[in-house]
Amino acid sequence: MTDTSIQDTMREIGQRARQAAARMATATTAEKDAALKAIARSLEANVQPLTEANQKDLKAGMASGLSDALLDRLTLTSDRIDGMIQGLHQVAALKDPIGEISDMAYLPSGIQRGQMRVPLGVVGIIYESRPNVTIDATALCLKSGNAAILRGGKEAIHSNQALANIVQSGLKAANMPAYGVQIIQTTDRSAVGELITMSEYVDVIVPRGGKGLIERIAQDARVPVIKHLDGVCHVYIDAEADRGQAHEIAFNAKTRRYGVCNAMETLLVHASATDTLTELADQFRDAGVELRGCSRTCALIDCAPASEDDWYTEYLAPILSVRIVDSADEAMDHINHYGSHHTDAIVTRDFALARRFMAQVDSASVMVNASTAFADGAEYGLGAEIGISTDKIHARGPVGLVGLTSQKYIVFGDGHIRN
Amino acid sequence: MTDTSIQDTMREIGQRARQAAARMATATTAEKDAALKAIARSLEANVQPLTEANQKDLKAGMASGLSDALLDRLTLTSDRIDGMIQGLHQVAALKDPIGEISDMAYLPSGIQRGQMRVPLGVVGIIYESRPNVTIDATALCLKSGNAAILRGGKEAIHSNQALANIVQSGLKAANMPAYGVQIIQTTDRSAVGELITMSEYVDVIVPRGGKGLIERIAQDARVPVIKHLDGVCHVYIDAEADRGQAHEIAFNAKTRRYGVCNAMETLLVHASATDTLTELADQFRDAGVELRGCSRTCALIDCAPASEDDWYTEYLAPILSVRIVDSADEAMDHINHYGSHHTDAIVTRDFALARRFMAQVDSASVMVNASTAFADGAEYGLGAEIGISTDKIHARGPVGLVGLTSQKYIVFGDGHIRN
Repeated sequence: MTDTSIQDTMREIGQRARQAAARMATATTAEKDAALKAIARSLEANVQPLTEANQKDLKAGMASGLSDALLDRLTLTSDRIDGMIQGLHQVAALKDPIGEISDMAYLPSGIQRGQMRVPLGVVGIIYESRPNVTIDATALCLKSGNAAILRGGKEAIHSNQALANIVQSGLKAANMPAYGVQIIQTTDRSAVGELITMSEYVDVIVPRGGKGLIERIAQDARVPVIKHLDGVCHVYIDAEADRGQAHEIAFNAKTRRYGVCNAMETLLVHASATDTLTELADQFRDAGVELRGCSRTCALIDCAPASEDDWYTEYLAPILSVRIVDSADEAMDHINHYGSHHTDAIVTRDFALARRFMAQVDSASVMVNASTAFADGAEYGLGAEIGISTDKIHARGPVGLVGLTSQKYIVFGDGHIRN
Repeated sequence: MTDTSIQDTMREIGQRARQAAARMATATTAEKDAALKAIARSLEANVQPLTEANQKDLKAGMASGLSDALLDRLTLTSDRIDGMIQGLHQVAALKDPIGEISDMAYLPSGIQRGQMRVPLGVVGIIYESRPNVTIDATALCLKSGNAAILRGGKEAIHSNQALANIVQSGLKAANMPAYGVQIIQTTDRSAVGELITMSEYVDVIVPRGGKGLIERIAQDARVPVIKHLDGVCHVYIDAEADRGQAHEIAFNAKTRRYGVCNAMETLLVHASATDTLTELADQFRDAGVELRGCSRTCALIDCAPASEDDWYTEYLAPILSVRIVDSADEAMDHINHYGSHHTDAIVTRDFALARRFMAQVDSASVMVNASTAFADGAEYGLGAEIGISTDKIHARGPVGLVGLTSQKYIVFGDGHIRN
């Protein structure tokens, strides 16, 4: 397609989404849940064509030399398809946030004023090779009363076309507007450029994928973006830490999974708690974790010296940087300076310090005596998440249904006028 | 200054703000209130130098041919200075939103998870000729624990320099960081370009002023913007409206003040309530309001025909467009299509319709049987407002202290690790 025709196509998609958004916003909980279940049924009934479409993507991916990691993300196993079906039912079971009224109160003028939770309108989601995001994003947008425009990676185009048919038949079966969820069918990159700049049709963009993609989108977007950049997460073992807890938390935070944003990347240890460090170092080495330390750490345990860059780095790998600090304030300064404001934890028995750490550490999730691995929508009881925000505006941390909503003011009077 | 030196200056301002933000965020309520009162005292003690600086601006403004309206906005009368002093005390008396913890609950894993209200960090405020915004913005940012970078209009540069001294001496007297509130002293326009793009130092931009300024800033910003574009507000008089209430509300919404964003710009009347229209038309004409109607309106009362453009227009003047509709749905469609999603009201005794209007009208403030004039931070009990947002993300409607904050997650455990 030419750029002009892509622009026209995208604007048409935007207009349809804007129209559908009005209907989505006022759909009842029963209607939305019926649509989610209809999509789940449609998915169950279409496993075969979906798997065939996915095979096409995988063949093309192998031919074009995609990495094993990318091919793995692209693959729709029957377990993953089951996961998508379960996900739809789980979102259907979540409490509907739309219409909730809070803070309704009489004011001196005699009016009553409150806030009503409403959808954002049209949500654009841009993601990479995982086709299951198509269904996860559909479910969260639908339940939160938003219209969605989804743009998956070009490697997954056949899978996403098959999923688009499944979503359409589900929406139709539940009498919801066909344009409530639109999946972009062109793989042309200029479609993304249009999507993130048509502010009259799109209310928010959620990019999901690598840092490069997200930075590019944040740079070029003219529509607000809910984004997640790095997860440079810390655990600080305080002088007053329970040693057993410190071990377990630090080891869990690093080794539970390496490639996730809530994994610990830097361990900070108080100078009078270095006894934990020598034991932990052995444990990490046994687990295959490479250690990079500050000069004091290197004097104490066998490890490579950490460079200034290491403190800023999200390894997403079995590598850990370690620094010894002389005070909790030094630890907090390190976290606020080098960290990415994602998730940071302290291990301490000191109540006053725990209270201070919570206030002073400027991160989306701040934890006391718990592993950073808990920073997750499901673990926080949000049911599902569209992503983890490292922004400060609108939503911080795991973003669930409520993150896809806003609040409008409502005012009741009985003929009230303002003096 | 050259562009390079302005860039350096602005980045230095940004760095200082970022450093000060950490201290501002953890200041106690008592410290923040003491600073607000110290600034108020400093203002009282410096009325004379402030008035002299303001006279310089006024002389320069007259010499350069500023309009009477702009000169009026620029003028610091003793009433306006009193208003600024009162404003500081009022903000000091407001509840401190920072540190409030909500939704703290035990989750199945055994961790406790809640949300803590925290400042956004560094707030950049860009405004035009009113120097009193310098103090209003200082007060709201300070109380909400944010560092502020303020950029006023070039016409007010001497007044703002005098106010900068007053704010500095107040911060100093209360032992708060001098760079907690910085007022940009250069009138070079490229300073704004820097301010709205240094995303590493600035967390949010609040532009206050005419639509042109705000659109320009929203277009060029690389930092999230809390903005207010038009206020094309509607009152819909339903078939089931109490006629007395309809009269009073429509008249108040239009004529209380013409130049404000919450003034009614379009009146919608149900075809079976046109009896109210004939009387209202006389009343509006007596008040000097020009009427522009749809063809049915023009057939009923003496008025000029409204063009398609009229329905989109925020007159901010004694002009009112009037349209007769056949149903409440037609009214709601008109509001959602032509309106600016600011503030819209229905007058009706019909409970079911009121409930539907609240859900279907997609505006920051939706009112039943009350004048649109109530859409205001003080009337909503917010104490003071930094602006009225027509955005959907983060904050809709009047933005008070809470709009300058966000929530981070906090997690408590007792050595909890994730399976």
